[in-house]
Amino acid sequence: MRTETSKLSKVDVSRRNLITGTGKAVVGAAIISAGGGLISKADATVTPEQTPWGYTKLDPKKTADLAYENWYKNYCCYAVSAAILDQLREKIGGPYDHLPAEAFIWGHGGAVGWGTLCGTLTGAGIVTSFAAGKKGEEILNDVIAWYGETELPIYKPAKPKAVFKHTNVSDSPLCHISVGKWMKKEGVALKSPERKDRCARVAADVAFHTVTLLNKFADGEFEMESDSQSAEYGITAQNNCMECHGNDVPEPKGI
Amino acid sequence: MRTETSKLSKVDVSRRNLITGTGKAVVGAAIISAGGGLISKADATVTPEQTPWGYTKLDPKKTADLAYENWYKNYCCYAVSAAILDQLREKIGGPYDHLPAEAFIWGHGGAVGWGTLCGTLTGAGIVTSFAAGKKGEEILNDVIAWYGETELPIYKPAKPKAVFKHTNVSDSPLCHISVGKWMKKEGVALKSPERKDRCARVAADVAFHTVTLLNKFADGEFEMESDSQSAEYGITAQNNCMECHGNDVPEPKGI
Repeated sequence: MRTETSKLSKVDVSRRNLITGTGKAVVGAAIISAGGGLISKADATVTPEQTPWGYTKLDPKKTADLAYENWYKNYCCYAVSAAILDQLREKIGGPYDHLPAEAFIWGHGGAVGWGTLCGTLTGAGIVTSFAAGKKGEEILNDVIAWYGETELPIYKPAKPKAVFKHTNVSDSPLCHISVGKWMKKEGVALKSPERKDRCARVAADVAFHTVTLLNKFADGEFEMESDSQSAEYGITAQNNCMECHGNDVPEPKGI
Repeated sequence: MRTETSKLSKVDVSRRNLITGTGKAVVGAAIISAGGGLISKADATVTPEQTPWGYTKLDPKKTADLAYENWYKNYCCYAVSAAILDQLREKIGGPYDHLPAEAFIWGHGGAVGWGTLCGTLTGAGIVTSFAAGKKGEEILNDVIAWYGETELPIYKPAKPKAVFKHTNVSDSPLCHISVGKWMKKEGVALKSPERKDRCARVAADVAFHTVTLLNKFADGEFEMESDSQSAEYGITAQNNCMECHGNDVPEPKGI
């Protein structure tokens, strides 16, 4: 984390300059060059009090490496959010200078251990929103869909902290189901080094995939592929209906 | 949201001054009085780049009213997070000046409609973390436990936007289960005005309860009541095991 003091002032910049696919961090550069003063350039006003704060393309592999190491500091939600936010702080700065990823540790274990949304996806939700605003919701939707249908983990650490045999398709974004299926397959406990490393690698995978989609977005090439869950099911829902409901899946009114 | 420009600088304050139960916003006052400069007072250094950012006691009823109205702007996660963050911005300022609650809209419908953690609880997680840091995790744990075991909604809006008959105990922090049980009981669709108002009132309840526990914390009287889920179950988990597993609840290794 950068420690130098910087000022957050209103900055007038064109909305079309907020996102850059060139690796050039327009917003951050503007703030730094002006020492926090007003910059008049544009046809629209963007302040640090508004989102999105902008995005610049990141290297997915480097981001995955950071997420893997971050997991061992503060678990899953921090792993993904810090891997991306720390790089945006470095490359863009501005409002990102004052958003500590430590604030998102609480998402671990599906929200302080309640096994709900996998903390890596909570991290992805936070980051995509700050980086891409409303469009970030579409990116998050596709990251969640991908998470459930993909054999994870994929990531191979250069220096693994533990070795294990199995991968699995969770068919769900819920921590309890995702990690539970894997623990059963591998035959290990929650506190085992193998389970910890599996989750650290999943964090790396989610960070990699999130940045891959954000990079497409930065290039103007992102289109949401997965349908809206509530439109599809008539209720907010995961996809694995029969896993809990068996053959008696209720049909909500209004479908 | 306040719109005046303010500076975020390193501020040296005593950690024991960060939290005040007197309604006096020590951190914000210090920043404002010094115009963003350094203030040396203390035995510890706190910067806006670190959490927690501090808390001052809020009125639970007023916070519930704000959350109810907020729901109709940007749904559940924003409803709770904005109800609390907007007041902390007003009363404490400093780093809160630059944390737009709009960044947390994505939590709606259990994460963009995936029905996982109820967005009101995602909002509670975000706010308790910024306000109370590591202790915020304990507060969140108790808010989640209370959510599952309480007949909701309790809140009665002065001017209800819809009228309905039923309340329910969700026995789960999952949006899909919480809203699904209620929709079945009330016999309405997701898009009905009744369902929307039920969720707006639940947001008011979660905001009320979160602030009630944060106020206890500010008074130095908060003690976590609900056990750690992973310690209890040997896996990150909700409490309603048989609802999905039936009588065949697996026993994880290492319990």
